[in-house]
Amino acid sequence: MANILILYDSDTGHTAKMAEYVAEGAKKYSVNVRVLSVDEASKEDILWCDGIAVGSPTYLGLLSWKMKKFWDDMVDLWGKIDGKIGCAFSSSGGWGGGNELACMSILTVLMNYGFLVFGVTDYVGDKFTLHYGAVTAGEPRREEEIEACRRLGERLAQWVLIYVDGKKEYLEEIKNREI
Amino acid sequence: MANILILYDSDTGHTAKMAEYVAEGAKKYSVNVRVLSVDEASKEDILWCDGIAVGSPTYLGLLSWKMKKFWDDMVDLWGKIDGKIGCAFSSSGGWGGGNELACMSILTVLMNYGFLVFGVTDYVGDKFTLHYGAVTAGEPRREEEIEACRRLGERLAQWVLIYVDGKKEYLEEIKNREI
Amino acid sequence: MANILILYDSDTGHTAKMAEYVAEGAKKYSVNVRVLSVDEASKEDILWCDGIAVGSPTYLGLLSWKMKKFWDDMVDLWGKIDGKIGCAFSSSGGWGGGNELACMSILTVLMNYGFLVFGVTDYVGDKFTLHYGAVTAGEPRREEEIEACRRLGERLAQWVLIYVDGKKEYLEEIKNREI
Amino acid sequence: MANILILYDSDTGHTAKMAEYVAEGAKKYSVNVRVLSVDEASKEDILWCDGIAVGSPTYLGLLSWKMKKFWDDMVDLWGKIDGKIGCAFSSSGGWGGGNELACMSILTVLMNYGFLVFGVTDYVGDKFTLHYGAVTAGEPRREEEIEACRRLGERLAQWVLIYVDGKKEYLEEIKNREI
Repeated sequence: MANILILYDSDTGHTAKMAEYVAEGAKKYSVNVRVLSVDEASKEDILWCDGIAVGSPTYLGLLSWKMKKFWDDMVDLWGKIDGKIGCAFSSSGGWGGGNELACMSILTVLMNYGFLVFGVTDYVGDKFTLHYGAVTAGEPRREEEIEACRRLGERLAQWVLIYVDGKKEYLEEIKNREI
Repeated sequence: MANILILYDSDTGHTAKMAEYVAEGAKKYSVNVRVLSVDEASKEDILWCDGIAVGSPTYLGLLSWKMKKFWDDMVDLWGKIDGKIGCAFSSSGGWGGGNELACMSILTVLMNYGFLVFGVTDYVGDKFTLHYGAVTAGEPRREEEIEACRRLGERLAQWVLIYVDGKKEYLEEIKNREI
Repeated sequence: MANILILYDSDTGHTAKMAEYVAEGAKKYSVNVRVLSVDEASKEDILWCDGIAVGSPTYLGLLSWKMKKFWDDMVDLWGKIDGKIGCAFSSSGGWGGGNELACMSILTVLMNYGFLVFGVTDYVGDKFTLHYGAVTAGEPRREEEIEACRRLGERLAQWVLIYVDGKKEYLEEIKNREI
Repeated sequence: MANILILYDSDTGHTAKMAEYVAEGAKKYSVNVRVLSVDEASKEDILWCDGIAVGSPTYLGLLSWKMKKFWDDMVDLWGKIDGKIGCAFSSSGGWGGGNELACMSILTVLMNYGFLVFGVTDYVGDKFTLHYGAVTAGEPRREEEIEACRRLGERLAQWVLIYVDGKKEYLEEIKNREI
């Protein structure tokens, strides 16, 4: 079974909640799922996973310094863990407050490690999507905010199953989805 | 009097509406304001303005090809118009759909021309701000979406008055604002 | 055999040359390779490919309007072609002139279509790499500039073989590479 | 006299050297210049300055976690220091290694604080510029790398003199420059 890590930093608990919903989405599939805060995770967890969703509060339009430090300190793994599949999620203080940019900063980090990164095309509610990662303003409360997190986890599990486990049948599931 | 250009591309009319609200904000101040679509504007308008707000629909997480073409074609002005003050606005199909990234792509273009670019720190409603430019999902309808556009125009006018016209008294207005 | 498309826009011919070198890299592997300019390519080519490398001159820190138009016009494929593997290359007028940002703008477009995108960790010369895509200043002439293009094509072919064709043996090749 | 802060983080000393050259450029003008590492600088320095150049090593395509922490911890100043003029510089391990993206991440932080940010249009050598900030690969050694840093400091001083000190005569200097 493929391994999926949901790694997050959270101060207010908003991003931690997002992480739980991302995990819910991933767990709909036959994959192993670990949900760990940046304080709990270690190099072993990074080595373990085939796919990863990284979440951070949006601080100044970027990931938090703590999440950045986690990856800066992981640099001896650099060049040895290429090819994992990655995605991002972030909670900002407000819409227009940088949550998309924070997701892109996370994807920038993951690309630097040689990961293949993705966003999700699906709309999960009226005028609500997750093209560059799941985003919320504050705590994820509205159904579409929660569903965006779940969908991110689902898609991560699907890509890992298709590409790492070679289960091409899930491609059909994606092709036949409602968007 | 300082000159402000609101330049926009619009297909559905959503970004055009944003442009009108940005202009409303700018017109609260003693500045000349032109609102022009990318089909109407010319090099003369770019040369004329001291400050500029550029708006585009969010297409694929970036400005539209038409707005890009406008600036690509303006390249003989490059290196001769440094120092103007610029900002961005964009309307996407949905939240999480790339409107912040589209604003950043516009700011990237403006920086390439040597402009000084900014976002706005103010919150204009509950969990709603415009840190990298004014953003909406679809037509600007909710009060905070409209106010974000207006605030962008106000701040653009203020910076132009302070920095180009040398009216430092407006710095106090910014410092004493509610955020 | 997996299909790889090298799609480029070029005005001066610099990006066209990069495209040829990217193709050279891809052709070291058992994959079908098409090299097409943005004027030659069609929707059928996008549907055909499993992996894609998109190249554009760096205009104003972003992809060219022509390349943007190509993808803006492809929007009826949106939501139907998720999961392809993509990467970027760009030639700017100078170092520090936006070629990395142009690569990121291309990756932003590809992510919007649901593609999995990547950069390359490898160093291909003294102080020369392609972490977010292959970049040059002007025509690719120096050995490391040429090798960066080739390496991009190689890695694209490798990921497509590993993930789309399920040939996991190529993972070993990547793991054992010199970096 | 206007105040300019050169704030940097440096591990190998490369970014520290860049900071010195940026300071050299700024000191050609009648401005006060402070050069401080992220370990030395305080809130008072941020409040003191009218213009700021922020430099960081390129770690994973972004600013270092230490520089990020500095600004994350500065958040009680947020909303109170809008309107300062800012720019960026960064040293990466290699060309194509993310130094432009690191500059953009610094500018993202500065924009979040309401600063007006800029790049420099000038070419400072053959195929060498600083459109989004001054960049080097490794230690700044080649004349164009050193000159890029100096030019950044000069332009920062010029914009601060023009916009903060109201010395419009420097606009002529910029307009008549060689590019």
